[in-house]
Amino acid sequence: MKKFKPITDEKFAKIVDFLTENKIDFLMINDSEVTRNVNMQYLTGHPQDAIVFVTQKGETFLMPWDIPLANKYAEVDEIFDIQNFDRNQMKFLQYFLAEKIQKNKVMVGVPSSYSYGSYLMFKNNAPQLELFSEPHKVSTLLEDLRTTKSPQELDLLRKAANIGNKAIPEIEKFAQNATDETENDLSILVRKKMIDMGAIDVAFDALVGNTNRSHQIHCFPLASTEKFAIPGLALIDFGANYEGYRSDITVPISFGELNDKQKEIRELTRKAYNAAIEVLDVGVPLWKVHEVAINEIEKAGHQMPHSLGHGIGLATHDAPAVSSKPKDPVYLQYWKEVKAENGMVFTIEPGVYVEGLGGQRLENDVIIWNDKVEVITKSHFIEA
Amino acid sequence: MKKFKPITDEKFAKIVDFLTENKIDFLMINDSEVTRNVNMQYLTGHPQDAIVFVTQKGETFLMPWDIPLANKYAEVDEIFDIQNFDRNQMKFLQYFLAEKIQKNKVMVGVPSSYSYGSYLMFKNNAPQLELFSEPHKVSTLLEDLRTTKSPQELDLLRKAANIGNKAIPEIEKFAQNATDETENDLSILVRKKMIDMGAIDVAFDALVGNTNRSHQIHCFPLASTEKFAIPGLALIDFGANYEGYRSDITVPISFGELNDKQKEIRELTRKAYNAAIEVLDVGVPLWKVHEVAINEIEKAGHQMPHSLGHGIGLATHDAPAVSSKPKDPVYLQYWKEVKAENGMVFTIEPGVYVEGLGGQRLENDVIIWNDKVEVITKSHFIEA
Repeated sequence: MKKFKPITDEKFAKIVDFLTENKIDFLMINDSEVTRNVNMQYLTGHPQDAIVFVTQKGETFLMPWDIPLANKYAEVDEIFDIQNFDRNQMKFLQYFLAEKIQKNKVMVGVPSSYSYGSYLMFKNNAPQLELFSEPHKVSTLLEDLRTTKSPQELDLLRKAANIGNKAIPEIEKFAQNATDETENDLSILVRKKMIDMGAIDVAFDALVGNTNRSHQIHCFPLASTEKFAIPGLALIDFGANYEGYRSDITVPISFGELNDKQKEIRELTRKAYNAAIEVLDVGVPLWKVHEVAINEIEKAGHQMPHSLGHGIGLATHDAPAVSSKPKDPVYLQYWKEVKAENGMVFTIEPGVYVEGLGGQRLENDVIIWNDKVEVITKSHFIEA
Repeated sequence: MKKFKPITDEKFAKIVDFLTENKIDFLMINDSEVTRNVNMQYLTGHPQDAIVFVTQKGETFLMPWDIPLANKYAEVDEIFDIQNFDRNQMKFLQYFLAEKIQKNKVMVGVPSSYSYGSYLMFKNNAPQLELFSEPHKVSTLLEDLRTTKSPQELDLLRKAANIGNKAIPEIEKFAQNATDETENDLSILVRKKMIDMGAIDVAFDALVGNTNRSHQIHCFPLASTEKFAIPGLALIDFGANYEGYRSDITVPISFGELNDKQKEIRELTRKAYNAAIEVLDVGVPLWKVHEVAINEIEKAGHQMPHSLGHGIGLATHDAPAVSSKPKDPVYLQYWKEVKAENGMVFTIEPGVYVEGLGGQRLENDVIIWNDKVEVITKSHFIEA
């Protein structure tokens, strides 16, 4: 993997402005196994397991779990080794405040996901520190910045999409020829193909559902020992991780002759997908794209128990969300309208699921660039 | 996977006592893709993506993302479908308070990991609700309960260990015969073996490091396109997921003739492991086991940049922690001594890592039962 700090200077300047306007002395973002936060990588290039501080002066400091990894990937002003602070984060924080901030009262900005337990520990044990009281503004700012991708990011996302695309003919061949092969077999085949084509990993473990399991929104377990090629409706949801950037693809498959209700599920999924792609254009609010698709499904008396899509980037679920406008006033105050614009990359993935009949979802990734919508993955309905 | 609610009636009664003593009307635990919380599964049997409420009366209510999945796995008093509340959690919460709690002022208990953003949304928008101000007590209670396993849980953990054990001879054979095979090849081989042996999934994606990468505490990427069999120090860290319960094993491998410094890394890892297993016994505080092992490494001038071990259960990192006693008074107040006792299952995994020389870690899983310590996985130093 190449060294690459995703955030542009122009976007970084917006963070500094935000800190200044809100009198926040520094921003603190933590990524760990327990709570992933891709903003850490976005701001520094360091891929995982670290705390990053961004000061009002525009300096970035990193305290990584793995120093050699940070030396390889991080582009920051300084890297701190917790070993030099007896592996004690509090001791490090005291040092950081004394050396880099030098104020008696310090305002710290954290994202919404910061834990309630840590908030209380902060409040009770560090009286000179105050947490910024509107963490959702921090989270929203970072999401807004990540909502549009730079040309370099778009290039990585196209590569992730292309690697995913290479697996689609393999899936088709597997479906055409499968007899006793299991869901697990398909999952491992697709994983191997993407790694052979240059992915550093899968974007996420593939969800593979035969007709008994495809009605599950997230198959549990993700793939099973059940035979895949059973007459009815099946699907596989998978993606590649290319240098940290993701693709996300769902291929809907039918085996054998479908009954009328199964045909309807397949047809509604197609209609909803086509309606979404048709309406999607620069300047269109994303909630409207969701609405157009879900309306196709709901007017036929079915439901779609998830959002139409989501951004893709360093996270498989990145900004922007392609989902409904909240009706509830509480949620509405944390929401804002996002319109399709150049630099956005997101999934369009309508689906219909009925226990006993199976489910279908057609998912492709779209890029908006040069005022045009481009579908960069090649999923389609497969018949076997 | 069989339907199985892990928590025993006796342990559940302790939760109800805790709620009563602390005047908490109900406990709320949320498991989602963004923040996993295995307590949800522990309390209900439902594997993923839901909110569970436990009331002071000892009732459990579940609001799952996937209703058919909950119907299959959840053992609760009632399952609620968010579709009946316009997919609006606030609306559901109002209904729940009116129907099930029926009080004007309601105290809600949440774990420490509950987000700061959600806390503020709660505080600002639901004046009749108050969040219990000591979430670490909620988290500690649940961890305490999960620290010892029931005989049924032990049985599942032994099965997960046995599936992991089946992969060890395959790893040995791969190492002995490898020429140009990559880290990715070994990762996929081990995954396939465990799934063929009955795992529903891997416990986590295997970390595979050849001698260039084995010094990384968590290899990034987890496995790569590099050749595995390069002279020096290598390792693979992997595990099985059997019906939700995990194993966690690291096999340290040497290729060819080692230099003296590499021999020292291997020897120190062995010494630290043996010292830990030697001292471990019923009644011994776990921080002492960590100390005995790390002392072996530190007195030779090396460091161990992680804890000696961690519990295993529904999570790969479960309770109890086998780590140092905090020196800092702030951390110390959230800490308590845990002694080895019957029903505990945890890893012992000392390691030594030097950039340029490589790293070694020997990791096995131990069960304490009938006042005896039993090592249930079979990792050992492999030479190839």
